[in-house]
Amino acid sequence: MTLLQDELADPAIDAWLGDAALIAAMVEVEAALARVQGRLGLIPQAAAVAIGQAAAGFAPDLAGLRRGMAGAGVPVPALVAQLRGAAAAEAGAWLHWGATSQDILDTALILQLRAVLAHIEAQLAETIAALAALAARHRGTLTIARTRFQQALPTSFGLKVAAWLMPLVRHSARLAELRPRLLVVQLGGAAGTLAALGPQGLEVARGLAAELGLGLPPMPWHNQRDGLIELAGWLGLLAGSLGKLGQDVLLLCQNEVGELRDAAGGGSSTMPQKANPIRAEALLALARRSAGLVGAMHQAALHAWERDGSAWQLEWASLPPLASGAGAALGHTQALLRSLEVDADRMAQNLAASQGLLLAEAACLALARHLPRAEAQALVERACRQALAEGRDLFELLPGLTAAPVDWPALRDPRAYLGAADALLDQALAAAGAAPA
Amino acid sequence: MTLLQDELADPAIDAWLGDAALIAAMVEVEAALARVQGRLGLIPQAAAVAIGQAAAGFAPDLAGLRRGMAGAGVPVPALVAQLRGAAAAEAGAWLHWGATSQDILDTALILQLRAVLAHIEAQLAETIAALAALAARHRGTLTIARTRFQQALPTSFGLKVAAWLMPLVRHSARLAELRPRLLVVQLGGAAGTLAALGPQGLEVARGLAAELGLGLPPMPWHNQRDGLIELAGWLGLLAGSLGKLGQDVLLLCQNEVGELRDAAGGGSSTMPQKANPIRAEALLALARRSAGLVGAMHQAALHAWERDGSAWQLEWASLPPLASGAGAALGHTQALLRSLEVDADRMAQNLAASQGLLLAEAACLALARHLPRAEAQALVERACRQALAEGRDLFELLPGLTAAPVDWPALRDPRAYLGAADALLDQALAAAGAAPA
Amino acid sequence: MTLLQDELADPAIDAWLGDAALIAAMVEVEAALARVQGRLGLIPQAAAVAIGQAAAGFAPDLAGLRRGMAGAGVPVPALVAQLRGAAAAEAGAWLHWGATSQDILDTALILQLRAVLAHIEAQLAETIAALAALAARHRGTLTIARTRFQQALPTSFGLKVAAWLMPLVRHSARLAELRPRLLVVQLGGAAGTLAALGPQGLEVARGLAAELGLGLPPMPWHNQRDGLIELAGWLGLLAGSLGKLGQDVLLLCQNEVGELRDAAGGGSSTMPQKANPIRAEALLALARRSAGLVGAMHQAALHAWERDGSAWQLEWASLPPLASGAGAALGHTQALLRSLEVDADRMAQNLAASQGLLLAEAACLALARHLPRAEAQALVERACRQALAEGRDLFELLPGLTAAPVDWPALRDPRAYLGAADALLDQALAAAGAAPA
Amino acid sequence: MTLLQDELADPAIDAWLGDAALIAAMVEVEAALARVQGRLGLIPQAAAVAIGQAAAGFAPDLAGLRRGMAGAGVPVPALVAQLRGAAAAEAGAWLHWGATSQDILDTALILQLRAVLAHIEAQLAETIAALAALAARHRGTLTIARTRFQQALPTSFGLKVAAWLMPLVRHSARLAELRPRLLVVQLGGAAGTLAALGPQGLEVARGLAAELGLGLPPMPWHNQRDGLIELAGWLGLLAGSLGKLGQDVLLLCQNEVGELRDAAGGGSSTMPQKANPIRAEALLALARRSAGLVGAMHQAALHAWERDGSAWQLEWASLPPLASGAGAALGHTQALLRSLEVDADRMAQNLAASQGLLLAEAACLALARHLPRAEAQALVERACRQALAEGRDLFELLPGLTAAPVDWPALRDPRAYLGAADALLDQALAAAGAAPA
Repeated sequence: MTLLQDELADPAIDAWLGDAALIAAMVEVEAALARVQGRLGLIPQAAAVAIGQAAAGFAPDLAGLRRGMAGAGVPVPALVAQLRGAAAAEAGAWLHWGATSQDILDTALILQLRAVLAHIEAQLAETIAALAALAARHRGTLTIARTRFQQALPTSFGLKVAAWLMPLVRHSARLAELRPRLLVVQLGGAAGTLAALGPQGLEVARGLAAELGLGLPPMPWHNQRDGLIELAGWLGLLAGSLGKLGQDVLLLCQNEVGELRDAAGGGSSTMPQKANPIRAEALLALARRSAGLVGAMHQAALHAWERDGSAWQLEWASLPPLASGAGAALGHTQALLRSLEVDADRMAQNLAASQGLLLAEAACLALARHLPRAEAQALVERACRQALAEGRDLFELLPGLTAAPVDWPALRDPRAYLGAADALLDQALAAAGAAPA
Repeated sequence: MTLLQDELADPAIDAWLGDAALIAAMVEVEAALARVQGRLGLIPQAAAVAIGQAAAGFAPDLAGLRRGMAGAGVPVPALVAQLRGAAAAEAGAWLHWGATSQDILDTALILQLRAVLAHIEAQLAETIAALAALAARHRGTLTIARTRFQQALPTSFGLKVAAWLMPLVRHSARLAELRPRLLVVQLGGAAGTLAALGPQGLEVARGLAAELGLGLPPMPWHNQRDGLIELAGWLGLLAGSLGKLGQDVLLLCQNEVGELRDAAGGGSSTMPQKANPIRAEALLALARRSAGLVGAMHQAALHAWERDGSAWQLEWASLPPLASGAGAALGHTQALLRSLEVDADRMAQNLAASQGLLLAEAACLALARHLPRAEAQALVERACRQALAEGRDLFELLPGLTAAPVDWPALRDPRAYLGAADALLDQALAAAGAAPA
Repeated sequence: MTLLQDELADPAIDAWLGDAALIAAMVEVEAALARVQGRLGLIPQAAAVAIGQAAAGFAPDLAGLRRGMAGAGVPVPALVAQLRGAAAAEAGAWLHWGATSQDILDTALILQLRAVLAHIEAQLAETIAALAALAARHRGTLTIARTRFQQALPTSFGLKVAAWLMPLVRHSARLAELRPRLLVVQLGGAAGTLAALGPQGLEVARGLAAELGLGLPPMPWHNQRDGLIELAGWLGLLAGSLGKLGQDVLLLCQNEVGELRDAAGGGSSTMPQKANPIRAEALLALARRSAGLVGAMHQAALHAWERDGSAWQLEWASLPPLASGAGAALGHTQALLRSLEVDADRMAQNLAASQGLLLAEAACLALARHLPRAEAQALVERACRQALAEGRDLFELLPGLTAAPVDWPALRDPRAYLGAADALLDQALAAAGAAPA
Repeated sequence: MTLLQDELADPAIDAWLGDAALIAAMVEVEAALARVQGRLGLIPQAAAVAIGQAAAGFAPDLAGLRRGMAGAGVPVPALVAQLRGAAAAEAGAWLHWGATSQDILDTALILQLRAVLAHIEAQLAETIAALAALAARHRGTLTIARTRFQQALPTSFGLKVAAWLMPLVRHSARLAELRPRLLVVQLGGAAGTLAALGPQGLEVARGLAAELGLGLPPMPWHNQRDGLIELAGWLGLLAGSLGKLGQDVLLLCQNEVGELRDAAGGGSSTMPQKANPIRAEALLALARRSAGLVGAMHQAALHAWERDGSAWQLEWASLPPLASGAGAALGHTQALLRSLEVDADRMAQNLAASQGLLLAEAACLALARHLPRAEAQALVERACRQALAEGRDLFELLPGLTAAPVDWPALRDPRAYLGAADALLDQALAAAGAAPA
């Protein structure tokens, strides 16, 4: 991870997915396997104990593992050799009994991912809470809804935030659904038949799952990578939702809009007045990058034969940056929410500066109570064009264009045209498990 | 869809996602909206009836819609104008009351996707049943597990098929989970506040959802596209799993392997002896293409502001080929399974031709009962090298290299080294809801 | 191509890449092959003539070709059979002599692409000319350079346009470079050895290339797809550059910025005041989609063995939408440039509204002639903060903060701080082959 | 770069693109800028000298730069501050004069890429030479061309290798073309107008380009990223071509094919007989990953406004792994070619085992001299089916099926049906600049 890539990674997740954690997880799997096999009498109980001790005090030689990786395309044989060296010869022979490299690597990865997901889930919950609080706080803050990059109608800033919030709430539910599919043990031996474990194969698998607190799938999943790809998609969904938030913040922070400001924005080397919205930028970059990585993980579904070393490498290159990036995105979002300044006055000014045009629809509806609808619409359109051409306010023009008994001053208040904004916000907050605003 | 792209599409899904179906769905949404609004007294009951009649007999002018699309970036205004033309003027004025184009388009899309998913789900269930039957039938068919493009150990062809089957079973569960998140009504009006519907906005939304048999989300999802992206990921998972099957079939159909044959393979223009595995090829192509389209859909999460016409277009370009491709993949798989010839004799021959090397692990384990494990392994490795160098069978060499009292002829039978293959297959079949083999 | 995908395609290119054009091109290749072989005495001259006549009057049975495609994975065998039916039996036997399906398909594709590229090149030249003219016209139009979504410094709108223009000029050069690599004949026979043509194989290949006006590669390129992938990358570069233009236009058309307006913008179904920038939206969507398709084409580099039916299908699904999309992007850009209104007054107002902050750098530099640079910078930063906090103009504050003899009123003119904008614009126009502004 | 990602990176390139190299390059750019400005009298000559000295002895505080990066989204302000600290105060004030962060970062990146490309180009030339030698060596080695995963016709292994070689030769030409577009200086100042440099802006840019040995573009390219994206595409093309080679090697190394063997293949933790083709696996993984990264770089073309911090981050995350991966792919290819064993005997055996079916086309052509072509083809097809059904050789059956005076034994020799294989190979070698075989 170079300096320039710093903002796209979460150091905590990088640590959980880093070499030390990987080695520790692999050692944990080997030790748990030995414990189970000792208990079942498949290997001598003393060997299991010795392996456990060797594992507990194990100091890996990373350079040796790298050489082993270069030689075998997986680090497991080298790791097993080092661990054997750490145990007594007799015990070492029983290490890795009946397992294949991929059993160890995949199960270790699942253990690493379990930790990562716990971290992400906590961050997600905090982000949901922060967004819900922000939405609730701005229930009454009037602002402009913009569609297709153009001003459309009034809305509340709270409802705008709710639209950032809702997908996160659903992501939470999705995570709960995918977790039991993902957090399962891998144990199949070289062909996925558990052949080297003899008649006790299934029992060992069951025991190993229990020992590690993982689920037990119907059969080994060496060449069934859908659980990992589903996770990748989930991480991509998360990054995408936060990227949308980031993009909106970037747009709202534009000087000409000025409705938000990242008070912790980055300075410029030459322009003292600038506050660059660097977290929002990073969120957008993370979303775009994640989308590509999700695609790469889907390519890795093409896992040939019973085990495919090429497809693994594609996973190893794609899943860690996705996870780290999702963590980084949550971190940036939380930081951003802490330093974000909401300028309700500017929102009101922008509304006021819109010459009443954002209430053209309201004017139409009001007029349509007195005129045929098409006629009402044509009249308002004419007034809009005139307002734009002459730089005047729609509600100054309308009374002169029709004798219909409309209460124009009342219509002019954007607050009167918020529809169900409050009720929708309450429903959103309720779905987020938050107290109503 | 040109000739050359024919194999990557499912004509039924193309129809459900085609223009006629889209127009019909949009008209259905407009009519349902009018019905609900008529019932609630928001528009005159007579107008609702007239709109329903106009909708029922509506003959769209497609060229006009195309012009409308080119002018507005969405076809809804032109469609509404045409529908209004079909209704009496008075009634027409009440058409599309309080809705925005995206309400109609998105809800129509959801209706189209509901039909598509019903079709895909049925196809998926049939594919699962066919694969389960194939797996059960080949419980006892011995074959070679190959890992990292090299022969590894014996397994059963049934277990190999079970590895194609299991992800599909999980996809089935995933579909059930995502469906309620996806099949929800879209109704928010121009700003997503339901403003134009006055105090009855929420009631209209509730009524429209009920009328169309869709769910009701906490708030409109104009700029929350996670449901569609989740679906895209699911379609990509499905295509990926079938692509893995296709790739394996391609590899197993190679002349040198010869364990499978697609009896309906395509002929060559110049080589009469060839049977090109064209369905397997298409499966592989579909998986690769789908992976890219999933990435594109994740890019569309970056949906700016309250509504983003650019992000929609990316969805419109990406989701239909994903859905159609998934349908095509299921169709190809079913056709392939019908014409696939499993050559159990060739599988046995390939095993027999492996000089006993696939049972080296079994030999190690057997020897390790009599020698220290490292010694046993070294001895077998030596024997393997000799077997390879001299073109001899491992089990001819081993008895001469050790006096250990191993029953070599018994070991030589690959059937004796299948481990838990049968039990794992049974577990897989049970998970697939199939009778045990 | 459904209604919703209309804006992402160029009908002319769709026609050149459509079924009729493909069939015509394949027939052209078969006829040219027969002509060359007749001339060389490889087939009877009379057969060549008869084949030419059959080709000239050929009316394909498209449904039959679709069935043939479904059966063989390529449409060529069915086409050859139809063409044989159209020729006398004797002559028909000499049709497709020594060629393989892929020879015909690939060469036909190259002929189609040649036409497509001529069209795109002409469109690109027109777009370059239009942008150059726009840039020249706005040499003196002052506007704001925005960096990282924040206002930065003054620039000219002409120079802004030049940044859209320059990549297109380079794309033009790139196209000239890649064309000879791409526009080459494919002829190798079933194994790429020209075996079926006997000793005259190379002569036939040379003759066919000459006959079709294509280049002759050192060897057949059945499994060397770099030319097509390079083209895909080029189309992606083009779409990307136009997407950047589209994104900038979207941003400049925002009501709050208001510096550009697409006078042909799309109306809204409910908001009469809106002018949705639909071409800019389409440009952005095309760029994002093209990026994904370029990735898909790169996946197709993994073309197995001597010929790979799966990789072809990925090409067939990816290259046509890339080409059609690039054409559509050029079309949208040209239409956009025709209807684009540049609001120089609004640009000036936005500059004026920036409280002098965009000239902070100029103030620093001027002060640094009288103070140590760090001191100058600190003073200006302080003034900027005060200006922001009090809503005042930087140049009102500065004279009160320092006694340095700076000519503040002169500095305040943004036109005085344009640096080399004019000279850079002239260089850009010269590179575009345009007259200086 | 974790252990599991080791095979996908080139340590030399990682170093050139690493933090130390980036910092050194940025410092080099700042020093060169000062030198040029000193020479032009824009800054005091003494300051330029002092800056040069500070740069020469500069020891960066990396942790400080990381903090600076986190604060500003670019490391340049922090670097400039550190460098200023290293120079005398007076001189430090003149550092970074008139430049913007992106000027420094982009120019530094170009310097880094120049080194990387020199390395890659040398590796590419070696790889081309090695492949040309391999192709020449196997001019006469008979083997099977396989199309659509099925055996097709005889060819030479030399010609097979030539198909791996040709794209690399074209990549070499492409690199020469793109280099002058890529290796250009970036200098524009905050708005790309060179405003802070006063009337000498263009001269400074010219001088800086000369000082660094880079080209000078018509205008700054802050928001014109086509040069970098073109490079990404080129790196992807390279990885794709080597991935195709890797995939073919994987397939040829399958036990059942056995025509190639990677003598340095990786061992298995449990299967002593295995030689896993780990370099070929890595090549395939690199190609797939690179394809995705190319797509990501194309997304980065959407560079908003005059400078876009989000798009940069996408570049920073995508280009380095592409470059490092291309280097790794070249390294793996060279290592693979060194340890690759070509088993010409096995190739001959595989040909012999094909029951003459690979010469069915030759039989057709020979018969067609005596019978009408359709009749000849029908007869050979019948014979092929019989050969397959009865496990007999085509050329044993044919003499009994026709009285046509064909010299069947001569036809049976695959060497007689190689067509122009040798001549094509010679043309390929000539294009590669290699001596003929």
